[in-house]
Amino acid sequence: MNANLAPSLPHVVIIGGGFGGLAAARGLRNAPVRVTLIDRRNHHLFQPLLYQVATAALSAPDIAAPIRQILRRQKNCTVLLDEAVSVDTETNTLQLSESTLNFDTLVVAAGATNHWFGKSDWAPNAPGLKSLEDALDIRRRVLSAYESAEKAGTEEARRQWLTFVVIGAGPTGVEMAGALSEIARTTLARNFRNFNPLDARVILVEGASRVLGAFPESLSASALRQLQSIGVEVRLNTLVSSLDESGVVLGEERIDARTIVWAAGVRAEPLVATVGATTDRMGRATVNEHCQVPAHPNIFVIGDAAHFEQGGSPLPGVAPVALQQGAHVAHVIRNQLANRPTRPFVYFDKGSMATIGRSRAVAMTGVGTLWPRTEPTFKFTGTLAWLAWLFVHVLVLVDFRNRAAVVAEWAWAWVTYQRSARVILDHGPRR
Amino acid sequence: MNANLAPSLPHVVIIGGGFGGLAAARGLRNAPVRVTLIDRRNHHLFQPLLYQVATAALSAPDIAAPIRQILRRQKNCTVLLDEAVSVDTETNTLQLSESTLNFDTLVVAAGATNHWFGKSDWAPNAPGLKSLEDALDIRRRVLSAYESAEKAGTEEARRQWLTFVVIGAGPTGVEMAGALSEIARTTLARNFRNFNPLDARVILVEGASRVLGAFPESLSASALRQLQSIGVEVRLNTLVSSLDESGVVLGEERIDARTIVWAAGVRAEPLVATVGATTDRMGRATVNEHCQVPAHPNIFVIGDAAHFEQGGSPLPGVAPVALQQGAHVAHVIRNQLANRPTRPFVYFDKGSMATIGRSRAVAMTGVGTLWPRTEPTFKFTGTLAWLAWLFVHVLVLVDFRNRAAVVAEWAWAWVTYQRSARVILDHGPRR
Repeated sequence: MNANLAPSLPHVVIIGGGFGGLAAARGLRNAPVRVTLIDRRNHHLFQPLLYQVATAALSAPDIAAPIRQILRRQKNCTVLLDEAVSVDTETNTLQLSESTLNFDTLVVAAGATNHWFGKSDWAPNAPGLKSLEDALDIRRRVLSAYESAEKAGTEEARRQWLTFVVIGAGPTGVEMAGALSEIARTTLARNFRNFNPLDARVILVEGASRVLGAFPESLSASALRQLQSIGVEVRLNTLVSSLDESGVVLGEERIDARTIVWAAGVRAEPLVATVGATTDRMGRATVNEHCQVPAHPNIFVIGDAAHFEQGGSPLPGVAPVALQQGAHVAHVIRNQLANRPTRPFVYFDKGSMATIGRSRAVAMTGVGTLWPRTEPTFKFTGTLAWLAWLFVHVLVLVDFRNRAAVVAEWAWAWVTYQRSARVILDHGPRR
Repeated sequence: MNANLAPSLPHVVIIGGGFGGLAAARGLRNAPVRVTLIDRRNHHLFQPLLYQVATAALSAPDIAAPIRQILRRQKNCTVLLDEAVSVDTETNTLQLSESTLNFDTLVVAAGATNHWFGKSDWAPNAPGLKSLEDALDIRRRVLSAYESAEKAGTEEARRQWLTFVVIGAGPTGVEMAGALSEIARTTLARNFRNFNPLDARVILVEGASRVLGAFPESLSASALRQLQSIGVEVRLNTLVSSLDESGVVLGEERIDARTIVWAAGVRAEPLVATVGATTDRMGRATVNEHCQVPAHPNIFVIGDAAHFEQGGSPLPGVAPVALQQGAHVAHVIRNQLANRPTRPFVYFDKGSMATIGRSRAVAMTGVGTLWPRTEPTFKFTGTLAWLAWLFVHVLVLVDFRNRAAVVAEWAWAWVTYQRSARVILDHGPRR
């Protein structure tokens, strides 16, 4: 593809320009290989802040950067906007939407997609939050619900529009619920004439016995208290038995609600099923200690697409895992070309954090913590945790190219309680 | 609609939350009336910067603010997100999408929409630029064209993807062409492996004998030189005879181009035809010296929806006209309620400006200039005009709520030659 490189160099194809794919590409920048990175979107997405786009705090471009701009100086790398459909492990060929691509080595960093666990008919009424389009869709629904409430003919109809249900209390669900509560409590104050935005209800539904199940119990308890302090109704040990466009049924109880957000699960992209590995319940490919497919060692799977066991427990689907695995895979490829061995991959867990609206959060870290997690050395809650969250994300974002604007947005939003992206974009057919 | 106001107060209904509608609403804030402002979008749009969204320099929310947030402190005003369909002048009723609204006084500030002058089949291949959705559509087309060029199988196909045609050389067309040239010359440098973005062609087509026909001839000539200096091919005295998805025919000459932007004309919204006034070629309602429909003096039409003659010449469709007319109409309504006369409306022309890419522009102003225009007192070109443009727009934007972020984006973009909104958002069907 790249006219400047000798075609005799080994061809490494990377699927996905997320944290894992980019780390792999960057790790190969001085290696004697041709790299082709395929993504069906033109942008790398800073997924940890996606909920802020969904809740109108940031605009879509604030958390997205063009992949080819990020890699523009890496001469041995070509970026293609295309869809990777399937892998042929016999011929070492990748099927794209309209063409095929031969590879010597393949790195599958295709990420995860929303998953309704057999209830795909729930999808239209309970959208998930994995892409910018998802986030803009949820933003449109949330803002439109308040508009419809202003026009509602009956109190009952208004109550339906002012009820928001978030399903799943992992970090995404907790952050969504916190932000939705904030919108009602501060952002929209005095904006309406026929109701008070404070009348809005935000309900967070979780099947397990606590929120933020991946965190220590004391932090889960703190997160629960913080959510309740800003008015979020948390329903633990509660399963959704059905849902439709006007509400959810929790066990036996029906809750009328026009806006439902799905944060209860994801699965690997379907392409992952074609790499010749065994897959787990979430569609992830089981890989060995170098993130290789055991039957096809020239195929690596990393990040949310991979099932990698460490200490008997699979690694979580978070950005640091993908980043570290991407770097590791690049290391393995470079070592293979130089006939050097590589030590097995080990995930180094720096910690976790989740925000709960304005000035509230939980966070933990422990020096030198490996996976699976033991009790973390440092735990924070409340404002201190929120400042830690802010500090880490500001640092990462400022590194993430020109995101000084995001910091300006945040500072302004914090001072004024406002959200700068309160725009309903019409996604209907256009003239 | 508004539960807090006595229903006996006169009801003023305003259609449109653009510059004119907002000015009218604000002008009525202390008047003894109930105000209802209807808009089919939730946001006021800063239209003069729309081309910057279309060319990936700004994100959509940067130039949009929620109408109800702007008017939140105005207790006598209710904002409704709805579509105004038609006016019944017999019963003083406004038909909305699913309901009707009675008015005592109506202010039609519905603005303009894209118009292909009888060639509506050109619309899908030559989108106009009037709404945020339009801008995001054009942004997607422009960025996707470069992606397709990278994948193109033949040089001919690549050339088609790298040819951009802008039809119409008014301010919007000139600004679009300048920004498109800048994208090719600076933003995308080193981003592609199979071509040099400098190979892109930007062609600006104009039927008249000069660009920026509303400006003095010397400024038109300067704008032409500035456009040519950044590589824009300007075709004057040239009419488009046909166009399709892969090119345009200019007179007899066919130019293969995959991206075409329509900046050649707008017309008033169809609703304006129902207010009982005579309409001009552009669908605008002819109004009297107070912006009233002569046959129905309780109906006012302002801004791009109105044909208002001053000194024998209709006022142009620019923001200052709408702003001044909106304020005037509020003044008339207040005076009527107090049985006071009002002096006829007179447009005060502060000047005009248009940018041509980075650091280039034309601008003019004259102290106390009325319409129609005479030779302006002050004319600027080049960097000085660009600084004047920047100064005015920074001032207005900072006033326009929290747009400090826009200024940060601009400063960063100017220093780095980058555009922060290079995101292709998928508008296809979603799961």
